[in-house]
Amino acid sequence: MSRPPGRKQENHKISRELFVLTYGALVAQLCKDYEKDEDVNTCLDRMGYGIGVRLIDDFLARSAVKKCRSYSETADMIAQVAFKMYLGVTPSVTCSSAAGNEFSLILDKNPLVDFVEELPPERASLCYCNLLCGVIRGALEMVHLAAEVTFLQDRLKGDAVTEIGITFLRKAEDRKHKR
Amino acid sequence: MSRPPGRKQENHKISRELFVLTYGALVAQLCKDYEKDEDVNTCLDRMGYGIGVRLIDDFLARSAVKKCRSYSETADMIAQVAFKMYLGVTPSVTCSSAAGNEFSLILDKNPLVDFVEELPPERASLCYCNLLCGVIRGALEMVHLAAEVTFLQDRLKGDAVTEIGITFLRKAEDRKHKR
Repeated sequence: MSRPPGRKQENHKISRELFVLTYGALVAQLCKDYEKDEDVNTCLDRMGYGIGVRLIDDFLARSAVKKCRSYSETADMIAQVAFKMYLGVTPSVTCSSAAGNEFSLILDKNPLVDFVEELPPERASLCYCNLLCGVIRGALEMVHLAAEVTFLQDRLKGDAVTEIGITFLRKAEDRKHKR
Repeated sequence: MSRPPGRKQENHKISRELFVLTYGALVAQLCKDYEKDEDVNTCLDRMGYGIGVRLIDDFLARSAVKKCRSYSETADMIAQVAFKMYLGVTPSVTCSSAAGNEFSLILDKNPLVDFVEELPPERASLCYCNLLCGVIRGALEMVHLAAEVTFLQDRLKGDAVTEIGITFLRKAEDRKHKR
């Protein structure tokens, strides 16, 4: 649990631009494959889920974070450690429900759209970064946290910020947590 | 040309694993889309070309490298600066022709296949990382260097190393270089 940060951490660091452009190629390919934006969104979410399920081990090993004891801590961890590590940005976090199970990650700047000007008119319903929602959902599921993760606002669609909503669906079953 | 390294460089660094897994999702999608390995390879190369054409500006701006005066210098630059920057590894370079226009980048470790065990039998001709060839080809073309870039060896196919061959097709037309 308190393993020191990996000594080879520097080797894991790469420049973001190749990733951002490769992601753009992936979205473009899916837009060729599927006529409906909803199908592209679903596919991106499903792909992201598969990635999150695998990425969680890497995250736990290299971040050396301790177990979160609340939804709030978990949301902060996603924003401050995971986003920072994997995308180089730190969203701000707000809690948006009295029940304390709904959170928003707010990105002033979304690195994934660095090379995207705007969505074409015929793709107005595309959630360009929907992969991220799937990644978060998949990773959370692997630590026994069921959640719904969706884009609530998107600068690509003219909103002032990009906002990812996370709704935790049940109390953490702490004893079953991997960590 | 001698602009100092970008002061925000650290912000461009991300963890490699999300990229590697996203790339895997891209290849998997193309394998769904195209029955023939050759078609997947062509598509990856074409996508990579489009990425390289856009990535070169980022590379020139942030690496602050000087203009290369020979194919040999160019090959070293790709290996020691570009690969290091974008993939976090540094291939070794060998010149494989008396004419001095053929080079090999040799990767003991290919980060793009971190999560790939081996190619499935029905995908024996897949050049899993062919996107990289396209990226190099596209980026070189933007500095007026025509080249053929292909995988000569691939550890995923049982070879001892992964080897990318670069054949420069004509002398650099120096005066036309952007930088």
